[in-house]
Amino acid sequence: MTDPSSTQPDPDRLAEQVAEAMFSNDRVSHRLGIKMAEVRAGYARLSMTVTDDMINGHGICHGSYSFALADTACAYACNSHNENTLSQAVNIVFLAPVALGEILTAEAEESANQGRTSVYQIKIRNGKDLLVAVAQAQCRQVPGRIV
Amino acid sequence: MTDPSSTQPDPDRLAEQVAEAMFSNDRVSHRLGIKMAEVRAGYARLSMTVTDDMINGHGICHGSYSFALADTACAYACNSHNENTLSQAVNIVFLAPVALGEILTAEAEESANQGRTSVYQIKIRNGKDLLVAVAQAQCRQVPGRIV
Amino acid sequence: MTDPSSTQPDPDRLAEQVAEAMFSNDRVSHRLGIKMAEVRAGYARLSMTVTDDMINGHGICHGSYSFALADTACAYACNSHNENTLSQAVNIVFLAPVALGEILTAEAEESANQGRTSVYQIKIRNGKDLLVAVAQAQCRQVPGRIV
Amino acid sequence: MTDPSSTQPDPDRLAEQVAEAMFSNDRVSHRLGIKMAEVRAGYARLSMTVTDDMINGHGICHGSYSFALADTACAYACNSHNENTLSQAVNIVFLAPVALGEILTAEAEESANQGRTSVYQIKIRNGKDLLVAVAQAQCRQVPGRIV
Repeated sequence: MTDPSSTQPDPDRLAEQVAEAMFSNDRVSHRLGIKMAEVRAGYARLSMTVTDDMINGHGICHGSYSFALADTACAYACNSHNENTLSQAVNIVFLAPVALGEILTAEAEESANQGRTSVYQIKIRNGKDLLVAVAQAQCRQVPGRIV
Repeated sequence: MTDPSSTQPDPDRLAEQVAEAMFSNDRVSHRLGIKMAEVRAGYARLSMTVTDDMINGHGICHGSYSFALADTACAYACNSHNENTLSQAVNIVFLAPVALGEILTAEAEESANQGRTSVYQIKIRNGKDLLVAVAQAQCRQVPGRIV
Repeated sequence: MTDPSSTQPDPDRLAEQVAEAMFSNDRVSHRLGIKMAEVRAGYARLSMTVTDDMINGHGICHGSYSFALADTACAYACNSHNENTLSQAVNIVFLAPVALGEILTAEAEESANQGRTSVYQIKIRNGKDLLVAVAQAQCRQVPGRIV
Repeated sequence: MTDPSSTQPDPDRLAEQVAEAMFSNDRVSHRLGIKMAEVRAGYARLSMTVTDDMINGHGICHGSYSFALADTACAYACNSHNENTLSQAVNIVFLAPVALGEILTAEAEESANQGRTSVYQIKIRNGKDLLVAVAQAQCRQVPGRIV
């Protein structure tokens, strides 16, 4: 007979619990209007609508808002194993301009997870499923858990 | 006798004129409270105070705001020659956490400028002159001028 | 009735033809002992055995040989559409040391391909299927074809 | 009276001693013909002549040899403080093709050095002083000393 209290939680269910705990006090995401679409172990998909506040002098979305969405998706994915993890370095390639009102979706997926270092690939698409940016993030586990 | 109308403007004076034109309709910088400290040919120094809006669930500044300051400094530096230039890719390394109320300063400096491609290094320091992030941006010249 | 001369070649068959043409005069790959395992449209898998020549003063494989394998896999993948394409920038994250005699395998996979810019992710594994490096390459199409 | 044996060595002299120790068993550098030009605390300048072995199918130097020179310059610079240090991630931007017979020079310079993480910028120039590549390396200190 197994003791239910000692049962390992399902990794994807754990990822959801972590994401809920993170999201509940993630003021930056709330302010930017970032919505969680799906979180699983090593994976997160988030969306954000480009508002007037995010438009630069050229009339297109400032790259740092695409970065913010990518970095946030990465944070939900890399913390999904319930080990405190920070992004140490991010390499982002911008592929297409983003216009006012577009709904961006960022998918972060685990490429590697070894020891305390993990690598995530993040793809950002617009509403027409066109890739507007691709990023590679290098993350580092630090002491502590989220839930 | 030289014809004043054909005189090449001083590169640093041109950089200032470009920066003024860019800044006058740079809504993202205004909203984030980014201030221009110094702009020269191939160089820009900008500052930003970390506000409550920029704080994430861990109680520290969300990395995307350091990125926003770095990317903006790069934009002023890479457009300083009055050729429309966009950042195509950015690699940012985060070195230290940033707290509420800190004044961040980003210095963007030209590392290379050849043909239509340029590379900029951007260093972000806090008020104690500690480096909190270093970035390398790859930029591409596109048709058009700023002023 | 279709005209056979106008038939578009199968993309994966074209990728193989391009790879054969590239490999036949790729002296660097021959000298490093790089072997082609599989090439398809937007994808390449290559392998290389770590030789004594590649060992640094710490007794492990010099990172530039892992880079060489990654960059070569990327070259075969990004040229697979028969458009001359060069890697412009590469971001590589090293995850684990590589020992003498290990057989490394690099898989390059297309993450994005839009206009003249493409992005590839390259994963390098050792013989135990452990990831030793992950890279993101940004490539640019230039005039000309391979076959 | 000071005890000479307890005197802290001059940082630049220490850097030279470390470099000599590293170079004496750096087989990869010897085989590639890499020559040390100058090493100081947080800085290294190395050179390499592009040989026939390094030429790819396009008749130009394979990017991984520019990378090898950059990575090696970084290794001498980041170990110059006599703390074992490894490059964890490198972002390299290629700016110009490199021909057979060219003498490349790589300069690695410390951009940041905080705690166990340091960042180096590496510039590679050809014999005409043209930049052919710029790289940013993120390094991590590990236990142990070189001399």
